[in-house]
Amino acid sequence: MSRLRVHNFLVTLDGYATGEDQSTEAAFGTAQSEFLPWFEKANIFRPADQPGSAVPAPSVNESIAAAWGSGIGADIMGRNMYRPATGPWPQDGWRGWWGEEPPFGTPCFVMTHWEREPLTVGNTTFHFVSGTPAEVLQRAQKAAGWLDVRLGGGPSIVNEFLAADLVDYLHIIQIPVVLGRGVRLWDGLESLHKRYAIESATMPNGTIHLFFTKTPSEAA
Amino acid sequence: MSRLRVHNFLVTLDGYATGEDQSTEAAFGTAQSEFLPWFEKANIFRPADQPGSAVPAPSVNESIAAAWGSGIGADIMGRNMYRPATGPWPQDGWRGWWGEEPPFGTPCFVMTHWEREPLTVGNTTFHFVSGTPAEVLQRAQKAAGWLDVRLGGGPSIVNEFLAADLVDYLHIIQIPVVLGRGVRLWDGLESLHKRYAIESATMPNGTIHLFFTKTPSEAA
Repeated sequence: MSRLRVHNFLVTLDGYATGEDQSTEAAFGTAQSEFLPWFEKANIFRPADQPGSAVPAPSVNESIAAAWGSGIGADIMGRNMYRPATGPWPQDGWRGWWGEEPPFGTPCFVMTHWEREPLTVGNTTFHFVSGTPAEVLQRAQKAAGWLDVRLGGGPSIVNEFLAADLVDYLHIIQIPVVLGRGVRLWDGLESLHKRYAIESATMPNGTIHLFFTKTPSEAA
Repeated sequence: MSRLRVHNFLVTLDGYATGEDQSTEAAFGTAQSEFLPWFEKANIFRPADQPGSAVPAPSVNESIAAAWGSGIGADIMGRNMYRPATGPWPQDGWRGWWGEEPPFGTPCFVMTHWEREPLTVGNTTFHFVSGTPAEVLQRAQKAAGWLDVRLGGGPSIVNEFLAADLVDYLHIIQIPVVLGRGVRLWDGLESLHKRYAIESATMPNGTIHLFFTKTPSEAA
């Protein structure tokens, strides 16, 4: 069965996964200057399997970050991971944060109350769909076939899928930052840990990897 | 100069350091059943330097936990670490959670708006004092002489001392629990991490030690 996986999801010590006041200039809003250096340190933007590049033996961090790309057949993300805006879509030609070669290469389901025609950019086709997390996951799994579905952000979307018990694998990169304000990941998820086996690994770069793997639910 | 140190302070993934509804039966209230096993795993209740006991070579966790006891000349705690109650002190003969041999062995300053006469239990004398964190710290440092002052809980008290920039050393034991409700440690402490060097270590028992050591403040 196709699993739902979250990878490389940065969370601060105080539980925030992004800041306030997202804009087209700052995907992480007020957290931008705190978060970007940690994305660099975690090697998220430097996948070890980039074809054609002379990559040395990957570090532990690079290997973990690169797991993001393996065995994925479809993506799901919240609207704010595609663009900052609420209400009807602005007609400004926005094609995502990623330029003309988005790193997904999949059918990518953008959750929105404002459905619209799909948009293909590079190897990625964005589908703008409404529905509950379970409904959108079903569509994405159908598109993914036997491969897994990857869940991006933002934190509200990941929180909703966790609350609905739909996430099979959750990889957190905890960063030693007390952000103070923004959007929290963990709210309303009391006892979440009981549904997962949890491993952790401290990195010399100051990050802590936390891996949540779904444990089989008890027989009814 | 006498430092202010916090040791063995359990915090959940979602930032809670205790639950709700503390009572004389449950020091951690609704978090009691989640927290107590982690205190055991962290070896907090089994100091390696207990005199006269046949202790094997201490584990990493035991060594870290035992650092709690070294070089301390006075303690500070919030009222709720001494007993659960607000307003005037109940006349019920309560002498703390620790029986007739409290583990402190120091002059112990209990912060309260309701001052009262000191109470000596075993080698510990509890002083019930009002004042700002800075004022109470000054009294405790005077009592500690050249030794350090240890700051206990609860989370609100530690939060207040952190907000007032009075804590020199903060040792967190992060536990893989999403508690969902209780009293948070980190609220209102935006950018706290910039005042500390932070180290972390993942333990096979599932806990993560985080060590915050005060860095010298920049020259004005």
